[in-house]
Amino acid sequence: MNGKQGLLLIADGLGDRPIPELGGRTPLEQAATPNMDFFAARGLCGNVHPYKPGIPVGTDVGHLVIFGFDPDEVYPGRGPLEAFSAGIMMGPDDIAFRGNFATVDERSHVLDRRAGRIASGTRELAAALDGMQLGGGARVLAKPLTEHRVAIVFRQAGLSTAVTPTDPNVAGHEVALPACTPTDGSAEAARTASLVNEFTTLCRQHLDPHPVNRQRRAEGKPPANVVLLRGVGRTSSVVPIGCQFKLTCACVAGDLTVLGIARLVGLETFHNKSFTGGIRSDLQAKARQAIDCVRQGFDWTVVHVKGPDLCGHDGNPLEKIRIIEDIDGMFGLFRRHLDLDRTIISLTGDHSTPCEKGDHSGDPVPTFISGPTVRRDGIAVTGESSFRTGSLSGLTARDVFRTQLDQLNVMPKRGA
Amino acid sequence: MNGKQGLLLIADGLGDRPIPELGGRTPLEQAATPNMDFFAARGLCGNVHPYKPGIPVGTDVGHLVIFGFDPDEVYPGRGPLEAFSAGIMMGPDDIAFRGNFATVDERSHVLDRRAGRIASGTRELAAALDGMQLGGGARVLAKPLTEHRVAIVFRQAGLSTAVTPTDPNVAGHEVALPACTPTDGSAEAARTASLVNEFTTLCRQHLDPHPVNRQRRAEGKPPANVVLLRGVGRTSSVVPIGCQFKLTCACVAGDLTVLGIARLVGLETFHNKSFTGGIRSDLQAKARQAIDCVRQGFDWTVVHVKGPDLCGHDGNPLEKIRIIEDIDGMFGLFRRHLDLDRTIISLTGDHSTPCEKGDHSGDPVPTFISGPTVRRDGIAVTGESSFRTGSLSGLTARDVFRTQLDQLNVMPKRGA
Repeated sequence: MNGKQGLLLIADGLGDRPIPELGGRTPLEQAATPNMDFFAARGLCGNVHPYKPGIPVGTDVGHLVIFGFDPDEVYPGRGPLEAFSAGIMMGPDDIAFRGNFATVDERSHVLDRRAGRIASGTRELAAALDGMQLGGGARVLAKPLTEHRVAIVFRQAGLSTAVTPTDPNVAGHEVALPACTPTDGSAEAARTASLVNEFTTLCRQHLDPHPVNRQRRAEGKPPANVVLLRGVGRTSSVVPIGCQFKLTCACVAGDLTVLGIARLVGLETFHNKSFTGGIRSDLQAKARQAIDCVRQGFDWTVVHVKGPDLCGHDGNPLEKIRIIEDIDGMFGLFRRHLDLDRTIISLTGDHSTPCEKGDHSGDPVPTFISGPTVRRDGIAVTGESSFRTGSLSGLTARDVFRTQLDQLNVMPKRGA
Repeated sequence: MNGKQGLLLIADGLGDRPIPELGGRTPLEQAATPNMDFFAARGLCGNVHPYKPGIPVGTDVGHLVIFGFDPDEVYPGRGPLEAFSAGIMMGPDDIAFRGNFATVDERSHVLDRRAGRIASGTRELAAALDGMQLGGGARVLAKPLTEHRVAIVFRQAGLSTAVTPTDPNVAGHEVALPACTPTDGSAEAARTASLVNEFTTLCRQHLDPHPVNRQRRAEGKPPANVVLLRGVGRTSSVVPIGCQFKLTCACVAGDLTVLGIARLVGLETFHNKSFTGGIRSDLQAKARQAIDCVRQGFDWTVVHVKGPDLCGHDGNPLEKIRIIEDIDGMFGLFRRHLDLDRTIISLTGDHSTPCEKGDHSGDPVPTFISGPTVRRDGIAVTGESSFRTGSLSGLTARDVFRTQLDQLNVMPKRGA
C-alpha cells in the first residue's frame, strides 16, 4: 500500500447533450449533485475524450482506455473479452472464441445460429463441454454467458489464432456448417484448425442427446446441438496494471463485460447478486463494497455503475437524472466514510450516451480528479458546460488514468 | 438520408493575425458577423489546427484534412489532384501527371517551360491530345487547366508510378528535354516509361503543326509544342467518404483545386459560372445552391469560398473584412431558409492566410459546429480571440470532421 489511495467511479454513458425539455441542460446538469460538486471543487475537472475526439467507443474500448491501455495496441478481440466476462482467467498460451449455441441438422446445415435464442439450460450444456479433452492433450474450457452465448477457450501450448471461424454469421437462410481452416502456413495453425474441427464433432456428440435438448425437442424447440465459434484472440499483449505499476487494484461491478475487462487487465473483481448491472442495481451496497476495498488497502479501486448508459439508450433523461442523483449518494458515502486527507476520489464515464441519440456518441465525458493535494480548477458545479474550461478538457481517458496514478505518486518517471 | 444533415462553410484562408491598423483586431474580429455569432452561440467553438500546430498547409492538404483524411497516408500527389480538378474521374488503374505546355526546339532543348505563359488556345491543344492511343492499348486523357497547365492521365491496367518526370523543372537556361526512365526494376515501370516517351514524341507531332501554334509563331510567341510531365501519382489509397460512412456528400465551389479534391474524395460537385473561385464570386448564389443541396437530402454539404485567402495573399485586410461580411450574409440565408432543428451548421477554413504574411500560416483556424443538440460553449462573438477558450481549440481539422459526423449520429463506434 502506498501513502495515498485512489477511488474512481465510472458512470457508464454519463455524458449527454443539451435536452430542450430540460431548458438545454443535460441530465448531469439538471441533477442535484451536492456531493459531486464538493469533490469537483477540490480538484481538476474537464470533459475527456475516451479515445479520439468525435469517435464513439464501445464499453470494451471505453474501459480499456480508462484502465490506461491503447486499444490500437492491445485490443485482444471479442473471444478473450467474453472469456474473462464468463470468469475464465486466460493464460498466455490460451486462445478464446465467442461461442453461440446453435442448431444443425443431420446434413450439417446450420438451421438456427442461436438455437431459437435459447434462454435456459445453457449452464448445463456448457458444463457438458467444459473440461473436454482433445487429441494431443489440449483442453477446452466452456462457460455460459447470456442467452445463447458461451465462452470457449482452448488451452495448450503452441496454439495459433490464424484460423477461420466456424460461425457462418449469415442470417435468414440455411448454410453448411463451415470447417475451420488455417489462415497461414504454420504447423500451429494447421494443428489448431484440426483441434477446432475435433471440438465441433465432439460438441455434436455431447450436445445432441443431452437431456436439455431432449426436452427442447419435446417442446418443439430447436436443439442447441453445436457451438459456432468466432472472434478468436489471445491476451498475451496485455500486461496487468498491477505488474506495470506495482499496484493492487480492485473493481466493483455487476456488468459482465466490465467485470471481464477488469479481470483481463488484472483488477481483482468484487461482485454480488445485488450488483445487477441494471437500472435497479444496489448502488449503496456497491459504494459500501468500494469503501471496504479502500479500507482493505487496495491502491486503486474502481466502481462501475451501468445505469446512466441504459437510460441514454432508452432515451429517458428523467430516469438518467434519478440515477445520477443516486450516484451522487454514493459520493456522499465516500465523503462520510473515507479518509479524505489521503484518498484521491475521481469520477468519469467510459463514453457519453446522449438520450437524444439513444446510443454512444463521441462527446467528451465529464470527469474530475479530487483530493487535498490535487491542484484546483475552482469549478464547483458538476456538468458538461461548467467542466468545459477545466484542466482535464481536451485530455484523453488514458491521460486521465496516468494523472490519477501520478496524483497517487506511483507513476514511473520517463528519463532519469 | 439520416435524421440530421450537416452543412459546412469553408472560408479559405479565414484565420488571420492582429493588424495594428485595426487596433490589433483580425479581419474576422473587425467584421460585423451577426449571423455567425448566432450560430457560434449555439454550439462548439475553437481555433483548430489544420494539420499539426505551427505547420502551414496548402489548399490541397488543408481540404484533405477537412474531409477527414490523413495526408501522411493518402496524399495522392499533384498529378491526380490536378486530373480531378480538370474533371477527369480517375479509376484505380490510372496514373496522372501535372502537365505544362512548353516550347522545345528541333534539338529537343526546352526553351520555355511554360510556352510564354500561354493563356489562350490550350483548350484546343489539349483536345488535340485527348484520347490519344499509345502502343499496347494505353490511352491518354488530356484536359486543360489554368494558363499553361494541363492534366494528363494514362489509362491502362498494369501501369506504374515508378518513373522519372520529363519536366526538367529548371528555369533560366536551356536544357535538353529529359527522357522518362523507370525508377525501379519492374516490367511495369519499364513499360510505363516507354509509353511516356511515346507520348512525348506524339505530342510534338500533334502540337507543332497545330493552328494555335501557327498563329503563335505568326505573332512572334513561342509555340506550345510539347507537354512536360511531373507529379505522377495514383488514387487507389483514397476511400471515398460516402463508402467510409454511408453518407451522401455534396460540394459547392468555384475553385478548381477544391472541386478536384472534392471529386477525389467522392463528393458530388456543384458548380456554375457565377462561382468564380475569385473575389467577385456570387456568394448569394453559392449559398442558395448549398441550401438546395440540403433540401435535396445530401447528408453533408460543404460550400467553399475562396475570397478571404485571396485577400490574405494580397495583404488587403479591408477587402478581407468585406468578404467575411458577405460570408456572414450566406449564414443569414442558412438561418432563414434551413430547418435549424435538424441541421448541424459549421464554419471553418482550410488554413489561416494572415494579411501581414501574405501567405498561408500555421495559425489555427476559427471554427464552430452549431445545432440544437450540440453542447454549447456560450461564446457569442466570432473571432480568433473569443474562440480561444472554446471546446474545439487544440483539436485538428480531422477531429472536427469526426465531430461533425458524430453530431450527425453517423460516426461508427470503435469496439462493442
